[in-house]
Amino acid sequence: MGRESEADEEIFDAVDRALRKHGYAELTMQDIADESTKSKSLLHYHYDTKEDLLVAFLEHLLDSYEERLECRSAEPPEERLVEFLARFVFTPEDGDREAFHLALLEMRSQGPFNDRIREQLGRSDRLLRETVAEIIEDGIDRKVFKPVDPERTAALLIATLDGARTRQITLGDSNDSYTRVVVEELLDRVIEPILTGDTDLPSLEEALADSDREG
Amino acid sequence: MGRESEADEEIFDAVDRALRKHGYAELTMQDIADESTKSKSLLHYHYDTKEDLLVAFLEHLLDSYEERLECRSAEPPEERLVEFLARFVFTPEDGDREAFHLALLEMRSQGPFNDRIREQLGRSDRLLRETVAEIIEDGIDRKVFKPVDPERTAALLIATLDGARTRQITLGDSNDSYTRVVVEELLDRVIEPILTGDTDLPSLEEALADSDREG
Repeated sequence: MGRESEADEEIFDAVDRALRKHGYAELTMQDIADESTKSKSLLHYHYDTKEDLLVAFLEHLLDSYEERLECRSAEPPEERLVEFLARFVFTPEDGDREAFHLALLEMRSQGPFNDRIREQLGRSDRLLRETVAEIIEDGIDRKVFKPVDPERTAALLIATLDGARTRQITLGDSNDSYTRVVVEELLDRVIEPILTGDTDLPSLEEALADSDREG
Repeated sequence: MGRESEADEEIFDAVDRALRKHGYAELTMQDIADESTKSKSLLHYHYDTKEDLLVAFLEHLLDSYEERLECRSAEPPEERLVEFLARFVFTPEDGDREAFHLALLEMRSQGPFNDRIREQLGRSDRLLRETVAEIIEDGIDRKVFKPVDPERTAALLIATLDGARTRQITLGDSNDSYTRVVVEELLDRVIEPILTGDTDLPSLEEALADSDREG
């Protein structure tokens, strides 16, 4: 994938808004056109089917997430890890971010029936796990973390963050703090014990206040 | 909910088989009738809509899960906890159990748009979390576990187990051992550290070999 054109960016913004409004299963090309300055027929000129457009949208999401992660790679590993975890916490200011993740969850339940969606899901899983594993390896090299197994630790952390998010978005308002409780417990129970004596964990509150959180 | 009739049991078995074959979004009353000795019109006599039947099916699942959990409540808490975790591990012998959980995941992504489904999801979340919290409280009382916060520990464990399962079922074959890796790490990293000196953790392998695993 080369650099995206402005036209692509505008289309992906429209897909994002349409997914938040309509979810995935019911989404039509017309819904996307309604959120865009492009007509439905122009969308079809660029993308044959709704599936083509959504696969391109997933690729775009992963590309930009990958870029953002790379920008951070010079920071101290303990800071990167807390920032990574903080991105999974939903706060009341997050607006329709839950709606967005709910649409992604619908797409995920289609993964096993759709090779191209599954391919993007697999890429997302590898990106998340490799990012965490790489942060942990870096921390072990710098003697910030004890020598745990980076891949297994990453699998544990990603499963936990994913599960907390899924439960928060599917259970509704009564569980506002599910992701926050789980991230706090992960920090206390899984991350703190692997810190070497010299390291302090950065505060979750600061990481949450950081403006560059996941969209 | 009183005791279920044999007719109900047979209908719920048909729903179970139909969900594994067709998933949730595409499921029709005819698909369920095809798996049953009942006709579609007889199904409609008992349940006005597909939604009515699926909500009753979710209630039935939760009722039987609740019953099974109650049967165990006299066992040592460390055994109950390992058994609870083992139920989330997928093994190659599980057959179409992944297909079943995938259908449930589709239903979950509908939760926020459907009050009655959300109500059952909320009940399921409370049942799982309260069960784990109760096992941990029992363990603290019996000096098997250190005095951790039972509710927060339960939230952490349930999020992790749920996330591992979701990733395993949505990512396909290449991740066969996702749930096993995560459960092993949970045992080593979260459960072992809260054991008091006198307690040994039962083996996961034995709990997996136990026949009474989740369907």
